[in-house]
Amino acid sequence: MKFNKILENIKNYEAGKPIELIVREFGVEPKDVLKLASNENPVGTSKMVVQALKKSANKAHLYPDDSMYELKDSLAKKYSIKPKNIIIGSGSDQVIEFVLHAKCSKNSAILVAGTTFSMYEIYAAHIGAKVYKTPSKSHNIDEFMEIYNSKKDEISVIFLCLPNNPLGECLDAKEVFEFIKSIDKDTLVVIDAAYNEFATYKDSKKHISPLEISKLKNTIYLGTFSKLYGLGGMRIGYGVADENIISNLAKLRPPFNVTTHALIAANEVLKDKEFIKKTLENNASEMVRYEKFAKKNGIKFINSYTNFITYIFDDKNSTQICDTLLKQGIILRDLKGYGLNAIRITVGLPKQNKRVLKALKALI
Amino acid sequence: MKFNKILENIKNYEAGKPIELIVREFGVEPKDVLKLASNENPVGTSKMVVQALKKSANKAHLYPDDSMYELKDSLAKKYSIKPKNIIIGSGSDQVIEFVLHAKCSKNSAILVAGTTFSMYEIYAAHIGAKVYKTPSKSHNIDEFMEIYNSKKDEISVIFLCLPNNPLGECLDAKEVFEFIKSIDKDTLVVIDAAYNEFATYKDSKKHISPLEISKLKNTIYLGTFSKLYGLGGMRIGYGVADENIISNLAKLRPPFNVTTHALIAANEVLKDKEFIKKTLENNASEMVRYEKFAKKNGIKFINSYTNFITYIFDDKNSTQICDTLLKQGIILRDLKGYGLNAIRITVGLPKQNKRVLKALKALI
Repeated sequence: MKFNKILENIKNYEAGKPIELIVREFGVEPKDVLKLASNENPVGTSKMVVQALKKSANKAHLYPDDSMYELKDSLAKKYSIKPKNIIIGSGSDQVIEFVLHAKCSKNSAILVAGTTFSMYEIYAAHIGAKVYKTPSKSHNIDEFMEIYNSKKDEISVIFLCLPNNPLGECLDAKEVFEFIKSIDKDTLVVIDAAYNEFATYKDSKKHISPLEISKLKNTIYLGTFSKLYGLGGMRIGYGVADENIISNLAKLRPPFNVTTHALIAANEVLKDKEFIKKTLENNASEMVRYEKFAKKNGIKFINSYTNFITYIFDDKNSTQICDTLLKQGIILRDLKGYGLNAIRITVGLPKQNKRVLKALKALI
Repeated sequence: MKFNKILENIKNYEAGKPIELIVREFGVEPKDVLKLASNENPVGTSKMVVQALKKSANKAHLYPDDSMYELKDSLAKKYSIKPKNIIIGSGSDQVIEFVLHAKCSKNSAILVAGTTFSMYEIYAAHIGAKVYKTPSKSHNIDEFMEIYNSKKDEISVIFLCLPNNPLGECLDAKEVFEFIKSIDKDTLVVIDAAYNEFATYKDSKKHISPLEISKLKNTIYLGTFSKLYGLGGMRIGYGVADENIISNLAKLRPPFNVTTHALIAANEVLKDKEFIKKTLENNASEMVRYEKFAKKNGIKFINSYTNFITYIFDDKNSTQICDTLLKQGIILRDLKGYGLNAIRITVGLPKQNKRVLKALKALI
């Protein structure tokens, strides 16, 4: 059986190792496994969500409301936009997929930062679109501008990850909006704001407003419920944009692309102010712990506007460190696959972070 | 903003109306709404699943095990196949999407029955692939063979929906396997078996064995947890095929394409023999009620091997009937959009079916 040639160049995405796999591979007790590899919310699942899920557990046989009326209504109110400015995806990942399929072809290209979220490149490969990367690993808006100007006819989508995963840096909103102004009206700029709430909490200059984005004709804002809102396991995210963009992307949305329970949970967690506050506060204070440790131990790190921190090593090998920690039941994300001798660590709860840093101290 | 030309020809899928929408539109009390439009399991959610979902409600923040180890293991045991013969999708719909993207292009075509599951055509439109339909609405294997032989160079995927949605008829397994034998090794035959458990229960000659399919080099079996297993709201299904087919489709699978809870629920419901038995028994005995009513009232119907029955009307208008019932809170699926003056009714519980037939009796 032959398949489309495009498949020959596609490799599968390597996800963070799930707890179950570590338990199976190394015989670590499940209670002793600590996973700070996938930027899941360490506070857990919102209690309001837990209650709502328990109450609706007996509705698993019922298809979701494919109009997604309630969730769109809640998001519209939250951002002072209209439901027609919103598309819901199975994670914001799926909205990235819609964007690529709607705008790109074998003859077009996307433009991304040197080191950024791998799904942009993966979905581009599904279509055979070319990928241009800036020479700098972090977002450098001048480099974006320069490449865009020289390849304007080819580049149909530009991805800005704000803040950037897996590095953690974040452009100021002001320079982002100035950049967008200079981009052609037929080039779609994607503002991936999966972690933007963390950035905004740390520094209001980093805040990207979905309302402002929705007024532009060539830009889409992506948000997710996987990070701040603690619903990574439920696969739900969204895009906010001008109605023309949303209605075109909606043509590629499969019916029932999110679950009945994901809609319930997402709608519920938006109301849980206490959970959101606790998540942001824990992240901010525990980030300081990681920064202090790095400074004290001569580890380089990138100032992070997210819920993770990236440690960059000089002489020690990041893969060896991760493998050793793995056998102790500590799962972190080695960034060797991104060409970096670095480790991405999700900021956990105080006790979790103490354990990680103690184990790390013994290896460096 | 311009989009790929392909989007100009795409219309959105019209899903069955959710209960919430009826409540909003006609002011019907939620308790009085009866939805038999989407072939959801009328027995409800398995009690074992409800317990498992309640127990895992606090795991919503954790990404799913992307290896899907446990569910693949359970399915492999159930069908005497290997995990590498299985791909899990967000509903079997998503596996259809993978197939189209892996095998088709603007220059190729798919072959389907005259009236069948609309997603084949919808996903083909996403790629711009041509759709050939047999003249007969139901599956006629001679017509499939004839069109295939005359368009062999173009047709890269053939869909057989066994039993067929939305009509209900089902080919015998014997003629299906004979048909597959005469199909080129580079044409992928998709056996959509979403309702096959119901067909098998009614007549063992309709049973398609995933094990037998996995031994072929050019065929894939699609199964779902949405129908017999009562997990429509959780979006989970699967494909079973030769390893070469599965590994190629897997290249197009987005990471975390099903939820943490869907994996738990699917794995759990496979063990709930009582729920499965009750679902099959209710469906078989209540199907007889619908058949008797039709015969007594001169309504044509298609002998159904599924969990729904399709009533075909002569002088009465199916749309008018559906609209009138809708205002009473009864939601059925009008098939006018398929070019049929017919209504598809999901077989419900005795009390539900009595209510539908009483309301219908008053209109015909």
